[in-house]
Amino acid sequence: MKWSIQVGKFFGIPLKIHITFWLLLLFVAMSAGKRGGGVQGGMQGVLLVLLLFACVVLHELGHSVVAQRLGIRVRDIILLPIGGISQMERIPDEPKSELFISGIGPIISLTLALVFYSLARLFGLNTALPQASLLDGHVLVSLFWINLILGIFNLLPAFPMDGGRVLRALLAMRIEYLQATHIAVSVGQMFAIFFFFYGLFYNFWLAMIGIFIYMGAEGEEHETILRRSLRRIPVGQAIITSFSRLSPDDSLREAMNIACHSLQMDFPVMRDGELIGLLSRDRFVKAMRDHSPDTRISEIMSTDFPTISDTEPLEEAYSRLTEARGSFVPVMHGRTLLGFINLEQIGKYHMLCGLGKR
Amino acid sequence: MKWSIQVGKFFGIPLKIHITFWLLLLFVAMSAGKRGGGVQGGMQGVLLVLLLFACVVLHELGHSVVAQRLGIRVRDIILLPIGGISQMERIPDEPKSELFISGIGPIISLTLALVFYSLARLFGLNTALPQASLLDGHVLVSLFWINLILGIFNLLPAFPMDGGRVLRALLAMRIEYLQATHIAVSVGQMFAIFFFFYGLFYNFWLAMIGIFIYMGAEGEEHETILRRSLRRIPVGQAIITSFSRLSPDDSLREAMNIACHSLQMDFPVMRDGELIGLLSRDRFVKAMRDHSPDTRISEIMSTDFPTISDTEPLEEAYSRLTEARGSFVPVMHGRTLLGFINLEQIGKYHMLCGLGKR
Repeated sequence: MKWSIQVGKFFGIPLKIHITFWLLLLFVAMSAGKRGGGVQGGMQGVLLVLLLFACVVLHELGHSVVAQRLGIRVRDIILLPIGGISQMERIPDEPKSELFISGIGPIISLTLALVFYSLARLFGLNTALPQASLLDGHVLVSLFWINLILGIFNLLPAFPMDGGRVLRALLAMRIEYLQATHIAVSVGQMFAIFFFFYGLFYNFWLAMIGIFIYMGAEGEEHETILRRSLRRIPVGQAIITSFSRLSPDDSLREAMNIACHSLQMDFPVMRDGELIGLLSRDRFVKAMRDHSPDTRISEIMSTDFPTISDTEPLEEAYSRLTEARGSFVPVMHGRTLLGFINLEQIGKYHMLCGLGKR
Repeated sequence: MKWSIQVGKFFGIPLKIHITFWLLLLFVAMSAGKRGGGVQGGMQGVLLVLLLFACVVLHELGHSVVAQRLGIRVRDIILLPIGGISQMERIPDEPKSELFISGIGPIISLTLALVFYSLARLFGLNTALPQASLLDGHVLVSLFWINLILGIFNLLPAFPMDGGRVLRALLAMRIEYLQATHIAVSVGQMFAIFFFFYGLFYNFWLAMIGIFIYMGAEGEEHETILRRSLRRIPVGQAIITSFSRLSPDDSLREAMNIACHSLQMDFPVMRDGELIGLLSRDRFVKAMRDHSPDTRISEIMSTDFPTISDTEPLEEAYSRLTEARGSFVPVMHGRTLLGFINLEQIGKYHMLCGLGKR
């Protein structure tokens, strides 16, 4: 996500904080300070928000660490004012994995709630729900309630929240995966509609959350359907076969002449009919800014790159492209370059070109 | 803008209301009803919001009607919860036109304020600023204050708001246009920064508005610089020359074979070396869904389309593409097709390919 600043690494997973979260902190400090707390009040407000978000980080780290153990790379964890997101390379479609990864989050939040409840009782505090605002009571009581709410809210079977994923995983152990997804999505959307109308009466933010859940559920269903249908198509069937190649001895100027007067921005580099390098869009753009037009392609191309075989399923190409965030992957038949593929092409093929074959 | 519903036409200009505005209405009705007003209270709340937005529509209609008189087509007016937007085909770079178009909005709002003030005094109402909320006083008093605030706020010289445009127009009558834009943008960004920090203390929404103004001002400066630099480049220099053509006798299947294995989705249709039709991306996609693969291209191509000459400035191509919302324009030298151009190509040419020629 753009505008995120990395603040640390836990278990090898970068923790990033989105700029809007810093704005929230600044705003909390200002308001708390203004409400009579002065500098001290402002700092207390910021401290509480930071503690709350430390709890959210623990919840997300739970998802991420379990995912890593199960062999799924976690790109990063991002903190936003509305909560945390663990960005995984893929959503496991093995039900048991999804069950463990999704279930651990609410378990951590509920455990934290129990810990803060015990601490609060130990100090003889009144643990009733604070009347005015969750932030008004003692910090331990606030942390107890907020982790309790976080745990319970995430346990609701509202896909794509944790509880919805747990529901899908449990269903998928008995029935077909797509069917399980469809049921979990429908249940999630019913919750979303309820949140929306309830929120209209009592809490505008809940109504907004309802809209996000509704759209998120729909998006995940589409992604699931896409992946499943890509599984049946070999990469070779969907590739781009009409494109220009470069030679390592070409100059950047020659590449620019092609790129500036065609639709192509990604180039395979060939010598004697063999693929020896790639000039991807990003590298190309950077080279045009930093290098002279006389620079040879061999000096700017990448030589360490993934390829894919034409017989592998299209889902594999999709995974590699979304994981690596690269712009394209060359498609090989043995040592022969057949063509290349990118995310736009996969989308185009799925939406339009597969039509005749249904 | 997506998710907008057309509710009427004024002076030939479609008035559209974005779905989020309907949500706001629903929310106002619910809250007002819940706050003890019941059904009647809810309806009164909705009525006031509708009256406020009628005033915003008058403000926007002012911009639009003056723009139309000056020969600028207005695509539509869209109402959002944060106000209205008049979507014009282009921003006039003739200072006098911009002065008239931008100046009329605040004048209408201030005139409305005067009208409502007079009416309120006529009925002997207390016209002081309502203490609790702008919506709490008599409807005439609310309308007076809101139009007054709208008029004054829009008169602030904070580009891209009305007052900022007036400032640019006034400057551009004396100094170079790009220089005038730069000054107006800088002044606008100073206001934005002030709104932001003032808002952090007193009103979170003002802080958000500050961010939007800051980014909006930057975006408009870039657009101005882009247009000015496109003015110096002939279309022929930036066109796509490497592409496939179709024949009117080709079948849709043949076009699909090309499109599904290349990067091209827009096609010129040629007969005996002469351009006789276009198959644009949108038409193509629609045809793939609705027609059999045996359909001939001549049945689905468009025969009424704009072209551009290779000697015209690139800015003209940019205007036609943004105005028509078409996906591409064929570039002709006399009756000969040289190539085509689209918005992505103009962006690519401006960002990358023009580099060597600076």
